[in-house]
Amino acid sequence: MIKEVTLLELVRPDLERVEAKMRGIASGAYAPLAAAFLQLLGSGGKRLRPALALAAYNLFEQPASEKAVAVAAAVEMLHNATLVHDDLIDNALVRRGITTLNAQWNKGATVLAGDYLFARAAGFAAETENVPVVQLFADTLRIIVEGELRQLFSSRQWDQPQEAYYPRIFAKTASLFASATKSGALLAGASEDEVQALYDYGKDLGMAFQIVDDILDYTGEESTLGKPVGGDLRQGIVTLPFFYFLQNSPDRQAVIRALENSNGAGDIGDIINQVRRSDAMRQAAAEAQDFASRARARLSVFPQSEYRQALEDLADFVVSRHV
Amino acid sequence: MIKEVTLLELVRPDLERVEAKMRGIASGAYAPLAAAFLQLLGSGGKRLRPALALAAYNLFEQPASEKAVAVAAAVEMLHNATLVHDDLIDNALVRRGITTLNAQWNKGATVLAGDYLFARAAGFAAETENVPVVQLFADTLRIIVEGELRQLFSSRQWDQPQEAYYPRIFAKTASLFASATKSGALLAGASEDEVQALYDYGKDLGMAFQIVDDILDYTGEESTLGKPVGGDLRQGIVTLPFFYFLQNSPDRQAVIRALENSNGAGDIGDIINQVRRSDAMRQAAAEAQDFASRARARLSVFPQSEYRQALEDLADFVVSRHV
Repeated sequence: MIKEVTLLELVRPDLERVEAKMRGIASGAYAPLAAAFLQLLGSGGKRLRPALALAAYNLFEQPASEKAVAVAAAVEMLHNATLVHDDLIDNALVRRGITTLNAQWNKGATVLAGDYLFARAAGFAAETENVPVVQLFADTLRIIVEGELRQLFSSRQWDQPQEAYYPRIFAKTASLFASATKSGALLAGASEDEVQALYDYGKDLGMAFQIVDDILDYTGEESTLGKPVGGDLRQGIVTLPFFYFLQNSPDRQAVIRALENSNGAGDIGDIINQVRRSDAMRQAAAEAQDFASRARARLSVFPQSEYRQALEDLADFVVSRHV
Repeated sequence: MIKEVTLLELVRPDLERVEAKMRGIASGAYAPLAAAFLQLLGSGGKRLRPALALAAYNLFEQPASEKAVAVAAAVEMLHNATLVHDDLIDNALVRRGITTLNAQWNKGATVLAGDYLFARAAGFAAETENVPVVQLFADTLRIIVEGELRQLFSSRQWDQPQEAYYPRIFAKTASLFASATKSGALLAGASEDEVQALYDYGKDLGMAFQIVDDILDYTGEESTLGKPVGGDLRQGIVTLPFFYFLQNSPDRQAVIRALENSNGAGDIGDIINQVRRSDAMRQAAAEAQDFASRARARLSVFPQSEYRQALEDLADFVVSRHV
């Protein structure tokens, strides 16, 4: 039965090539840093982004070409580079439960380690020898960084409009998902419509993924999140559950005043608990579900195949993470 | 008389297009940051790197094509990005006598501002639609960052071999000079030999330039340097004058012990003064002169023209900066 093959299982052989390519940066790197680079890459999670690039390519041709492997590595390396700088910015000591580079190295080395991963990501993208792929890569890097700057400068703006949320999560997450699927399609020589369909799939999937992440930030347990519940709000970042909560609040201004006056964890903790228990969680989840359904629908232009099925199933999986 | 036209004057019209292109990033950028980006670019010095890219192109064709302007902007933007992160790493409050971004912004914003300039530089490089240029760009970024990591990790290694100096300054400076001239040649459709000659010219010029910079760090006045004399040694960075000084010292180990025991500015100040007054300065200057002469000689494969003459004169100018 096709449905039982997950995307990550399907692309595993190609994903192993991506993994080997990424870990290869350590062999050419300045020796004292090789181990640190490997540790950074080793904590990279599920490799969802390169899997998306590979699966988009595999819709047209299997196994992945060397260039498809290169772009998948570029996408994941770029993701890791942004995580390194994010950790520095957040002063996060813990991400996914392991010690980050930031805690072990001084800040200067951490900035440079992130830059090094950016450089290697750019190198992998250039290996595709595909001008539109390289341009998309540079563009995505710009969008991600600009999004981070926006997030930094809009921190603690409790009263910002909900419309500001969507471009922010597009920049943060969906842009790279969309870039992954579009790059795979471009390298496979897909038609313009097919490229667009896979870009749209990646974008909608990424939006769903980030909304679910933002929900989990409220509902998750500290032990599984590896960070405090409500961490976003504590950092002054307002996400979809909060927007719905505020919208439903009888006295919106009272909530905003309470947040403006909060500087300790205590007051914020109260509001986080109120958001968690509110109907806002269900509303946000429904919106994630809408994005996931749109993502699935984008694939209808492709003939049925195990790759299409796995990509469709992935959309369901992404939103099922919150149960 | 040809000799009186300087390189920067020759390429001025094209350089103004580069300037306009670079400043264009502010118009598309997140509004609160536009002014900060312009300030960063405004303090960018003489624009030597883009001038080199343009002049290399102009050897074959004038005026510069849009793509040559794009690569010149990419090179200068990359240079500015590395300066932003360097300032952060050095915790430098002053560079070229003006307040840096680092002093005004928090560190997180500074990391991201540097990333943003990297992203825009990558975008400009991609605009050339020239695969070898894009690959060279990614490679140069990697070399520069790796060099900075090496420098950071070899800090206060007073006893390191002189041979470690040359790859370090290649990475820091000469690689981008060489990348600028090579990119210009590639975009002008130069032959393989011509591309190589211009790469070698840029590399030798960059080596001369950095050695002179390292000399000026000892001989310059605080008021013109915009930073303390002997700043490199104070930061634990050993450069060519120091290597010659150590080589000439009757008791090499005594110097190294003195540096190892120094943690205040006082002891280091003594050694800086000894280096300044020693014959090491002349030896280092002679070596810079050798690199500059080699750079000039690389151009002999090109027919005489005002551009070739200006590039030759630039080599002389670079080493004349120390008088």
